[in-house]
Amino acid sequence: MTTSKGKPLAVIAGYGEGLGEAIKHTFENDGFQVVTISRSEGMIIADTTDANEINRAFAQIDALYGTPEVVICNTAMLTIDRFFSTTATRFEETWRTSVMSLFNIAQAVIPMMIKQGGGTLLVTGATAGIRGSKNFSAFSSAKFALRGLTQSLAREFQAQRIHVSHVVIDGILWSPKSRERFPALRRETAIEPNDAAGVYLNLTKQPASAWTQEIDIRPYSETF
Amino acid sequence: MTTSKGKPLAVIAGYGEGLGEAIKHTFENDGFQVVTISRSEGMIIADTTDANEINRAFAQIDALYGTPEVVICNTAMLTIDRFFSTTATRFEETWRTSVMSLFNIAQAVIPMMIKQGGGTLLVTGATAGIRGSKNFSAFSSAKFALRGLTQSLAREFQAQRIHVSHVVIDGILWSPKSRERFPALRRETAIEPNDAAGVYLNLTKQPASAWTQEIDIRPYSETF
Amino acid sequence: MTTSKGKPLAVIAGYGEGLGEAIKHTFENDGFQVVTISRSEGMIIADTTDANEINRAFAQIDALYGTPEVVICNTAMLTIDRFFSTTATRFEETWRTSVMSLFNIAQAVIPMMIKQGGGTLLVTGATAGIRGSKNFSAFSSAKFALRGLTQSLAREFQAQRIHVSHVVIDGILWSPKSRERFPALRRETAIEPNDAAGVYLNLTKQPASAWTQEIDIRPYSETF
Amino acid sequence: MTTSKGKPLAVIAGYGEGLGEAIKHTFENDGFQVVTISRSEGMIIADTTDANEINRAFAQIDALYGTPEVVICNTAMLTIDRFFSTTATRFEETWRTSVMSLFNIAQAVIPMMIKQGGGTLLVTGATAGIRGSKNFSAFSSAKFALRGLTQSLAREFQAQRIHVSHVVIDGILWSPKSRERFPALRRETAIEPNDAAGVYLNLTKQPASAWTQEIDIRPYSETF
Repeated sequence: MTTSKGKPLAVIAGYGEGLGEAIKHTFENDGFQVVTISRSEGMIIADTTDANEINRAFAQIDALYGTPEVVICNTAMLTIDRFFSTTATRFEETWRTSVMSLFNIAQAVIPMMIKQGGGTLLVTGATAGIRGSKNFSAFSSAKFALRGLTQSLAREFQAQRIHVSHVVIDGILWSPKSRERFPALRRETAIEPNDAAGVYLNLTKQPASAWTQEIDIRPYSETF
Repeated sequence: MTTSKGKPLAVIAGYGEGLGEAIKHTFENDGFQVVTISRSEGMIIADTTDANEINRAFAQIDALYGTPEVVICNTAMLTIDRFFSTTATRFEETWRTSVMSLFNIAQAVIPMMIKQGGGTLLVTGATAGIRGSKNFSAFSSAKFALRGLTQSLAREFQAQRIHVSHVVIDGILWSPKSRERFPALRRETAIEPNDAAGVYLNLTKQPASAWTQEIDIRPYSETF
Repeated sequence: MTTSKGKPLAVIAGYGEGLGEAIKHTFENDGFQVVTISRSEGMIIADTTDANEINRAFAQIDALYGTPEVVICNTAMLTIDRFFSTTATRFEETWRTSVMSLFNIAQAVIPMMIKQGGGTLLVTGATAGIRGSKNFSAFSSAKFALRGLTQSLAREFQAQRIHVSHVVIDGILWSPKSRERFPALRRETAIEPNDAAGVYLNLTKQPASAWTQEIDIRPYSETF
Repeated sequence: MTTSKGKPLAVIAGYGEGLGEAIKHTFENDGFQVVTISRSEGMIIADTTDANEINRAFAQIDALYGTPEVVICNTAMLTIDRFFSTTATRFEETWRTSVMSLFNIAQAVIPMMIKQGGGTLLVTGATAGIRGSKNFSAFSSAKFALRGLTQSLAREFQAQRIHVSHVVIDGILWSPKSRERFPALRRETAIEPNDAAGVYLNLTKQPASAWTQEIDIRPYSETF
């Protein structure tokens, strides 16, 4: 499970400024070779919601670098809106971005990992995946679905040494995008992407006798 | 909120043998006029996953009978299969049948209900919506999504007197379909559709000072 | 399981103004004979946290009226206080009032019920039993414990036709005590005791193919 | 927050073979000075269920080493028994060992930590604290109570830089005690104490922008 360069391989799907970038640097600093997949700015350009594109992406990764040891599913579309302002298209797209992406990635990568003797699949969740809220009908429904899929995958594949873990992000990440979206956000009350990324890295180090299926993180200042 | 016949109106989406039929009879016996929507066998033929068809169906219901006091969302596609045998199409269809049906129905009916001063929206959930399991990746993910949507709707619309309630069916209903699917099923260990239907009816009777958002039901013999 | 007067018997432990009283009237109106247990004002005076007193109380009930069909555990000590102001004594008493009361009652009454062929045990829970909160360390810990005990009893005795159900009260009951405690409380935003009592009564009517283990209730106006 | 030897201080309450011992070694290897409290075999002999003894113990620790940076609450009494075989005394002792220990320790140590600018309180939970089960009435009720207390402490003190975290152990630790209790236990299906201890250590390293309130661990082979 090491690349041609002798490094373990990690793949980040849903790469972008903020968490994706932080995970990339954190894993690289730890000695991983990191490949990023994104619709526009990753090393591999692919639409994670499209099974064909994802299959092609992982075939390419396999040919170039081998089987990933770790795959991180970090795709999301944050939809916060009144239910009556949420179109069916937007509702579906919110679900598709989170859930079909994980479905496609898991279909492509779990068989490769099983063949290699195991692997780790990390999924970015949110508090909205645990509690529904006003104005979160689309996002919450999508994140619930993601959590249900993650639990089911963990229960189906854990005995084959596939470690599936769900990271519940409870708060707002300190990123250019979130500062634009929430202009009042202060750094003190946000999650530092690098700090969150450390949690992902730790999960990949867990020995098989003590695997985590779910972990939450929030800033000390978050009321929850 | 009474029909031309002076009766309160209940609409069942996802009508069929088993639970749908039992809810129909239970509500009719209680004095409701009941209209059923189904892809093939209801009084109104419509595909609940299609927003246009649902909008047309509720416009028709409105013209013929008025605004429903109660709508029951009972659409589901039971998918139990190994993850690797679950196609993307099936995965999506399982989600669409449960979740887009509720989305479309809620978009169509909640505005009508608010205009009338309130109403009740009852949603059929499952234990798979609370815990993921091996071979339940599609069904569990869909039922999680349904639960998240239901909670979000309850939190967004409750103050406008829209009562949204999620019924967690923990067990197998005694119906022709389930007997065919699970030949070893014994009546003693199944949920009687009429008994489940009684739970739905009770929810519609709850006064606004004591509304239930979630209730589970299971046979006394179910290990849980 | 009917009393000498040919009526089914219900016992309310933790009787008092508000919910206890409303349950009594609701059950009596439905045809139950109701016996109340309380430290000071019930028909039977007993400290529910004391096993001996509870055993004596149920022996007395058995002799006078027979085996109860329904027992309602409604004892609670509402403690809302900063953690540092909560004494060990108060913390323990809060737990004891809820949890040892249910323990003692269940020990006394479940064997009688099993001998009679079944029975219903209803337990008053709270949202604090599902989520911890600031200033709720004692109350939340006690209500969590109560919920864990209730689930365990349901899972241990359900197959012997003992229906154990946990009612999550999410809001403030409209009672003299709560009006004194929360002077700003408005009726519009409180739970009517009679409305809550109706939920308890409905649970006793559930046929064994569709038993509820947990149900929540809140006023339509409650933000949750 | 460093000891006279210039090391950060960790205190383990409920020290013993197995997890306690493993945490001690793991923290010492990481550079912590570790003080253990136990009824019989710790460096400090104290009954954690007794507030006076705990206050004395922490006064002694304060005088000898200073304020702990980390305190680990690891006390538990595993009770697995039919409900009718569980005495009130045993039920209460099971609760007291877990919950009053944490209560006493939190009362003693959180004020010291706040004065120092912060600290970490780690609590050993179990799956029984999340789901009740047959024959687990005492243990489950105690572990639920522990979880409720932990959540409440986290919500009350997090903003004062007290990190309270609940570790859900889902499985059996590989220890002399558990091998005696479960003679059929195989190492392959147990949790290695050292692997679990690593999770505790990681929690103490989390920066304040990404604190975990709850994390579960289980062996890859555990069906859950």
